[in-house]
Amino acid sequence: MDENYMMECIKLARKGAGSVSPNPLVGCVIVKGNKIIGKGYHRKIGSDHAEVVAVNDAKRRGHSLKSAVVYVNLEPCSHFGKTPPCTDLLIAEGVKKVVIGSTDPNPIVKGIDKLKRAGISVEKGILKAECDELNKFFLKYIKTRIPYITLKIAQSIDGKIANHLGESKYITGIRSRKFVHELRSKYDAVLVGAKTVIKDNPELTVRNVRGRDPLRLIVKGRRHLKQTFKIFNDNNYLILTNNKVKGEFILNVKGKSRFINLNDSLKKLGQIGIASILVEGGSTIFSEFIKYNLADEIIVITAPVIIGAGLSAFDEIKSTRISTLMRVKPYYIGSIGNDQLIIYKCSQV
Amino acid sequence: MDENYMMECIKLARKGAGSVSPNPLVGCVIVKGNKIIGKGYHRKIGSDHAEVVAVNDAKRRGHSLKSAVVYVNLEPCSHFGKTPPCTDLLIAEGVKKVVIGSTDPNPIVKGIDKLKRAGISVEKGILKAECDELNKFFLKYIKTRIPYITLKIAQSIDGKIANHLGESKYITGIRSRKFVHELRSKYDAVLVGAKTVIKDNPELTVRNVRGRDPLRLIVKGRRHLKQTFKIFNDNNYLILTNNKVKGEFILNVKGKSRFINLNDSLKKLGQIGIASILVEGGSTIFSEFIKYNLADEIIVITAPVIIGAGLSAFDEIKSTRISTLMRVKPYYIGSIGNDQLIIYKCSQV
Repeated sequence: MDENYMMECIKLARKGAGSVSPNPLVGCVIVKGNKIIGKGYHRKIGSDHAEVVAVNDAKRRGHSLKSAVVYVNLEPCSHFGKTPPCTDLLIAEGVKKVVIGSTDPNPIVKGIDKLKRAGISVEKGILKAECDELNKFFLKYIKTRIPYITLKIAQSIDGKIANHLGESKYITGIRSRKFVHELRSKYDAVLVGAKTVIKDNPELTVRNVRGRDPLRLIVKGRRHLKQTFKIFNDNNYLILTNNKVKGEFILNVKGKSRFINLNDSLKKLGQIGIASILVEGGSTIFSEFIKYNLADEIIVITAPVIIGAGLSAFDEIKSTRISTLMRVKPYYIGSIGNDQLIIYKCSQV
Repeated sequence: MDENYMMECIKLARKGAGSVSPNPLVGCVIVKGNKIIGKGYHRKIGSDHAEVVAVNDAKRRGHSLKSAVVYVNLEPCSHFGKTPPCTDLLIAEGVKKVVIGSTDPNPIVKGIDKLKRAGISVEKGILKAECDELNKFFLKYIKTRIPYITLKIAQSIDGKIANHLGESKYITGIRSRKFVHELRSKYDAVLVGAKTVIKDNPELTVRNVRGRDPLRLIVKGRRHLKQTFKIFNDNNYLILTNNKVKGEFILNVKGKSRFINLNDSLKKLGQIGIASILVEGGSTIFSEFIKYNLADEIIVITAPVIIGAGLSAFDEIKSTRISTLMRVKPYYIGSIGNDQLIIYKCSQV
């Protein structure tokens, strides 16, 4: 039963995807006598927390929260941020019990302690894995101030992201491309290398699905990028460069010759509130993220086609021994249309 | 109910894997009054057919076959081969109905017609897809006299079968390697290129699982292979070559310079009764099978590791347009330990 209510919190929380970052996705369900009397979720950054929405929902429907059980996928806040602390509200309303999915890694959040001290029963870790996955961006970002990094690789069964002529449009099927647009809408930013801009002239916007466009990040060393590329269609972009150039759309980062320093880049992107980045290639960029152990997740979409000679995702890495290869952890395996989807977790966090 | 009995036939039939080729795998279940009164399977080439074994089993247990229903995954034979026709037996025993999975593509097999003419009710196509898959080797071989070809590729998530130094041992995990040994035991032959023999010195025998060793086929152009390679450990091998050399372990096939003619090779291997071949590499061999459209199935085992620069399975193919890439059909997706297993069907048959 606890699991069902928590799953409901997760479903509610997901509705905030793309609008709450760098805040967490939170859903809340209030139960009394085996009946849901109120629910809510965090809609967007700056707006009411899920607990407040759920409490107001219950009251609006004429319920008292005395002795109610509150389900929430993330430990309620105990500090004054943009809104007053949710724990104070739950205590004031006289709820009996709070059931929590993930605990908040933020050291200033001590919601559980505060609830317990007020005599409220607390149960934590219900559907913890699912709740942690839901807020993977937030949980990493709050601990490290570095965005969560996902590499998205679309390839053939023989692991090629482009043929020997550099052509890559489109290896995967239409449903996978739609899936990528959905993915984009959930990340704060997407990132590509200048070479990919020149080769593919991608838009990197969210199309065919509802959702807001992520910030477009372009990693640029010495290459010149014409302003006519589609990626410059609107002002929702930022060029990361180690050149001395300055400008409104430039983020100056460390780095030598053609390589920008990714560690420095991610730190600076974290500082401006970017909590998640979907890395969309190409091979040089993918290789750099792996070399410096900066990826959290790798999404591989494999189309049932054979390319033969061509480019693979990590061709700039040179591993010398098979027995000590970099290992990742399979997390999900499934299909999207005729394509196969495998999600791997990298475990440096 | 029919499906359950047919599934039982399939399970029984599988016990003959590795022993009946080029005969089909057949299991038979005889049912009377919702009770199985007899069952059997084709144990090995030359021995009694499944129907005969099942009939004898029922009689030994004191049952009459009058009005019984016979389940069998493949159309019963109607001709004199190594044993008398099974249809005659079923007719003589007075069975009421025969339920069949796959029909036999062999034009001389007209079991269904014969049974019907004798007034026996026939139902066909029960679990047809499963029954056809069970006898995929037989069904292709009987139609074309060319062995069923499966390419087995063990690779990293970036599609590399060896690193930039040519090292490939072992990319996949121990459970996948066991799975490959099981696979080998079910094929009539395994096949590798001379380069793979030189690089990896593989044994290509069945180890860690029960099962008989397949014939080892080595594709050899001009390269010299020392007799000390493990592949020559016993006499269960055959070298396919377009050189003029003769010998007990040589199969002379057509071909120019370093490439043997695979079409001619498969025709000659079919003539000596090889109905199935597991192709284990390397890249040159894999590429040739795809170039000439000779593969029926591709088994891709992906280990959760990153190799970077290295060799991919089909690097000798040069596709010029993404929109016209060679397509295969995903048939199965799953896991073996930490590795992912995807099976593709090629559709030239």
